[in-house]
Amino acid sequence: MSVSDWLLGKRLSTIEEEQQEIGPLAGIPVLGLDALSSAAYGPEAALTVLIPLGAAGIGFIGPLSAVIVAVLLIVFASYRQTIAAYPGGGGSYTVAKENLGTNFGLLSGAALALDYVLNVAVGISAGVGALVSAVPALLPHTLALCLATLAVVTLVNLRGVRESGAAFMLPTYSFVVALGAVVVIGIAKIIVSGGHPVPLAVPPPLAAATHTAGIWILLRAFANGCTAMTGVEAVSNGVPLFRKPRVPLAQRTLGAIIAILVLFLAGIALLSRAYRIGATAPGQTGYQSVLSILVGAVAGRGPFYYLTMASIGIVLALSANTSFADFPRLCRVLAEDGFLPDIFAVRGRRLVFTQGIMSLALFSGALLLGFGGLTDRLIPLFAIGALLAFTLSQAGMVQHWRRRRGPRVGRSTAINAVGAVATGLTLLVVAVSKFTEGAWLILAVIPALTLFFRRVNGHYQRIASQVATIDPLEIPGAQNPLVVVPAGSWNKMTQHALRFALRLSPNVRVVHVKTEADTVEDLLSDNWELLVGSRARAEGIAQPKLVILTSEYRRFYKPFVDYVLKLEIDNPGRDVVVVIPDVILSHWYEGLLHNNRGAFLRSLLRSRGGPRLVVVDVPFRIND
Amino acid sequence: MSVSDWLLGKRLSTIEEEQQEIGPLAGIPVLGLDALSSAAYGPEAALTVLIPLGAAGIGFIGPLSAVIVAVLLIVFASYRQTIAAYPGGGGSYTVAKENLGTNFGLLSGAALALDYVLNVAVGISAGVGALVSAVPALLPHTLALCLATLAVVTLVNLRGVRESGAAFMLPTYSFVVALGAVVVIGIAKIIVSGGHPVPLAVPPPLAAATHTAGIWILLRAFANGCTAMTGVEAVSNGVPLFRKPRVPLAQRTLGAIIAILVLFLAGIALLSRAYRIGATAPGQTGYQSVLSILVGAVAGRGPFYYLTMASIGIVLALSANTSFADFPRLCRVLAEDGFLPDIFAVRGRRLVFTQGIMSLALFSGALLLGFGGLTDRLIPLFAIGALLAFTLSQAGMVQHWRRRRGPRVGRSTAINAVGAVATGLTLLVVAVSKFTEGAWLILAVIPALTLFFRRVNGHYQRIASQVATIDPLEIPGAQNPLVVVPAGSWNKMTQHALRFALRLSPNVRVVHVKTEADTVEDLLSDNWELLVGSRARAEGIAQPKLVILTSEYRRFYKPFVDYVLKLEIDNPGRDVVVVIPDVILSHWYEGLLHNNRGAFLRSLLRSRGGPRLVVVDVPFRIND
Repeated sequence: MSVSDWLLGKRLSTIEEEQQEIGPLAGIPVLGLDALSSAAYGPEAALTVLIPLGAAGIGFIGPLSAVIVAVLLIVFASYRQTIAAYPGGGGSYTVAKENLGTNFGLLSGAALALDYVLNVAVGISAGVGALVSAVPALLPHTLALCLATLAVVTLVNLRGVRESGAAFMLPTYSFVVALGAVVVIGIAKIIVSGGHPVPLAVPPPLAAATHTAGIWILLRAFANGCTAMTGVEAVSNGVPLFRKPRVPLAQRTLGAIIAILVLFLAGIALLSRAYRIGATAPGQTGYQSVLSILVGAVAGRGPFYYLTMASIGIVLALSANTSFADFPRLCRVLAEDGFLPDIFAVRGRRLVFTQGIMSLALFSGALLLGFGGLTDRLIPLFAIGALLAFTLSQAGMVQHWRRRRGPRVGRSTAINAVGAVATGLTLLVVAVSKFTEGAWLILAVIPALTLFFRRVNGHYQRIASQVATIDPLEIPGAQNPLVVVPAGSWNKMTQHALRFALRLSPNVRVVHVKTEADTVEDLLSDNWELLVGSRARAEGIAQPKLVILTSEYRRFYKPFVDYVLKLEIDNPGRDVVVVIPDVILSHWYEGLLHNNRGAFLRSLLRSRGGPRLVVVDVPFRIND
Repeated sequence: MSVSDWLLGKRLSTIEEEQQEIGPLAGIPVLGLDALSSAAYGPEAALTVLIPLGAAGIGFIGPLSAVIVAVLLIVFASYRQTIAAYPGGGGSYTVAKENLGTNFGLLSGAALALDYVLNVAVGISAGVGALVSAVPALLPHTLALCLATLAVVTLVNLRGVRESGAAFMLPTYSFVVALGAVVVIGIAKIIVSGGHPVPLAVPPPLAAATHTAGIWILLRAFANGCTAMTGVEAVSNGVPLFRKPRVPLAQRTLGAIIAILVLFLAGIALLSRAYRIGATAPGQTGYQSVLSILVGAVAGRGPFYYLTMASIGIVLALSANTSFADFPRLCRVLAEDGFLPDIFAVRGRRLVFTQGIMSLALFSGALLLGFGGLTDRLIPLFAIGALLAFTLSQAGMVQHWRRRRGPRVGRSTAINAVGAVATGLTLLVVAVSKFTEGAWLILAVIPALTLFFRRVNGHYQRIASQVATIDPLEIPGAQNPLVVVPAGSWNKMTQHALRFALRLSPNVRVVHVKTEADTVEDLLSDNWELLVGSRARAEGIAQPKLVILTSEYRRFYKPFVDYVLKLEIDNPGRDVVVVIPDVILSHWYEGLLHNNRGAFLRSLLRSRGGPRLVVVDVPFRIND
């Protein structure tokens, strides 16, 4: 068993594809972690903005969460339709491109790609942050822990889709059960206590109000809260991962994800109001996450508290996994349409798109490195990409329905139109309220990425137009090529190359470049008749010619390449073939002892030669 | 004028060699800086060991210097003979190899090579140290200044031998005149004052004695003082640099260098005794170099003091230049004998051995980086290599004379024998007294380097034995090669490659690897008759065969390479030629958009194929 088999799993045959397909139980860990984990930072991000309002701020979390939940439900209804309409995978890119045109498709693809990269960095960093705040001794190792988590998630994903579903199932469902239990128990206590439950662990007192509520602060709180919506598009993008019947299974999975998320968001809003829990200022002493305060208040600081907090940390770190399932698929469709390099469309040993996984790991690893593993400043930003993609996707669906006729088309159009307007308005709010906090950067990167896709496509189209043909083969004429063999001296390599050259053409030149006052040229000239001439005559074939080039400046390449290029120019219509003897050594380090003239000469001829210049490597193997 | 012409000078023709030759005036800067500059650290290094003896220590500097001068004069007499006996360049390597055998030659070459590298690092670091102690504001930039100096010295040397002689002449002679004036004026003052001169700037008081003199402390002082002897071998190594008549000019140059050095060493010993100047502890507050104290005492702290100190600093930094003149020549002879890669024997655009210069810059730059520009701990060590080379060289000369007959052979033998014994004893003293201070490392590296030379030589000999032949050419038999063309689809590249393939042989296979469920294979199969078959029939040539390989695991390379290797094995005695269509793009970065299958396939076939597998690159150029 090789190391790569052990690390990455046995290579899978293409016909084993079906065994890699998943159902809703595995679908939630594979495609839902991004959406579910956002319950852990969305409400907190909204409450943080409300800190200056003091106790009054908590009053707003209910209405804000209600709006977010409403938008979420609209998005759910909308994406349910997308899944049915695009069973082959209805990512925003596909839907927008097919209905709104390539430009909107690329815009949407760029937005999502950026969102996926940010999600990996932010998720891992948040998860490690939770771990580190529980075990402060690990604080100096934050970056190392982030990169190690990234490595594990990458590796699991390289092993294939089923593997990641299986590996992440236990932490996902622990999280759902634990946080679900907190919400249910908390609500029960609220009802039993008549709306005034007694916290088991007393929450920190709310800060004194320094501002009064205004529309701007509420908009910013809403914008922050919208990060809870990211990750919802993952299922519609990943429909082909499901086993048959794909559409209902995917819809059911999306429904389950949304239901859990709504339960969490509504529960957190209710509990924080009843228990009077607000955010504490991040990065300052006494900071504690909202969920930590809330779990403590409902369930006390016993073993259950630690279990719940651990599952939150793990799920945050693993929320990166959704990006790993979807980003490579997005790159694949972009590559298939010629907007990214071909290699993104090639499936690796475990039937996943290796290149996309590796690129995602690389980009998000660079982000983690660049921010030293502390990416909390990025959290409010990464909803922008998702919301832009949502809006374009749903606008595309509206267009999709307008092209059809049928009984229920009007209703479908209405659902998607409401979705598009809702997410579009939300996008507008987030972009404006976050503009100076970094949203401008996102809004600059997305068009740049779109332009990049366009440029890549231009390159491929230029090549395709130059390469494409439906003409049949032209059989070569009778004219033989001119063959040139560079020779340092008379040895077996020269012999070997010359023998091959004579097979190509009767018109062969052996070229020796005299770089210093050497005597090799004399040896070659004096013995040419004996070594080559007499033999050729005996066999009745044309004589190979010996050419000596003198290099005044001790250069080998320039005189030789000049000679070959001149030959090509002087003989229009004829191929010029350079036969290079290629020494093949047993060990790579032995290459350091050689000037590698062959390789260098090949690349020179390749870059400077014309279309009729062909290079032939004749191997000569040196044994140990 | 190109950038490289401006930076490195116009390329020199081989016949311009004579114009690059030098006389004694340029010979001293080119070959003598190492020897002369050691006057600046040799006596100081000896006095530093004597600090614990207090005032009594100064009494020993006279006798110690006398012994060192005596050994120097013996070495001079000895090397004068070497120059006459080896007008083609009598480096220790050459002399030891020819007279004592290859092993001693390599040992000596390794010792000198190490010495040269250390000399560059130590010289530059000492010179920059002098500058920095004069202008303390530059202290944080020590490493940067060292590397900048290294870059300048490297560049000047790449411009050629004459250039370095001319560039370094002014600083060298300023140093000689200034320090010479100090010595002469100081001695005059001693005589005038009856042995008790009054210092113009009062030297720091001598430390109280904490030890009494013992043999061990005196031996260590002597060992340190011997660093003053390094660099003396440079002239005998560089005889071919001189214009004709070479031998007397080289001998005169060596004589001048030794005379100046002896004047400096004797003068410094006399003056430090008369003015009661001892070393101050390096690296501690109040540190001042011995020469700084001495120049101040003799000439006061006026402009002359600063001029003299500046010239000392510059000459120390430029002492690296001697290594740059000799190290490349040493590498060249080692390369010509097959103990180093060929490239070291190739002369660059300015007739110098570029590779040797670059290697020296690289190794010494690495030392400077590794030690952060502070290499004073290396100073006592680098005499070991020089002394080992001296001893072997002179022992070689003894053997040289023993093989001759003649009137003055007895006297010559005696001179070299005395030299060998003197430097051999000195080496022993240095190696033992410095063993624990790092000499063990030098004594470990030198044999390792010798072993490396041996291994390189073994490699070249193995290749030579496999490549050498004096057999005439065998004309190839009538059997045509089997030609394989990989094809992704039918396009101009495939057309182009197939056309070339048909010129090689009537036996051509076009191989398509089916990696996913694609339809290319059907297009190729269905239209093969139309695209290729009918055309071949019309021209009356053999039909190229279409081969479809199915890849269960979506791999392209493995099925293709396996197919080709099997073809080679199944057809013993026949060449197998793979014709690879090679896309040539206008910009390197466009390469990132392509899988570069051609290049990868070529390297796979190259490493896995047998001796009859030939690879042909047929270019296909994409225009902008």
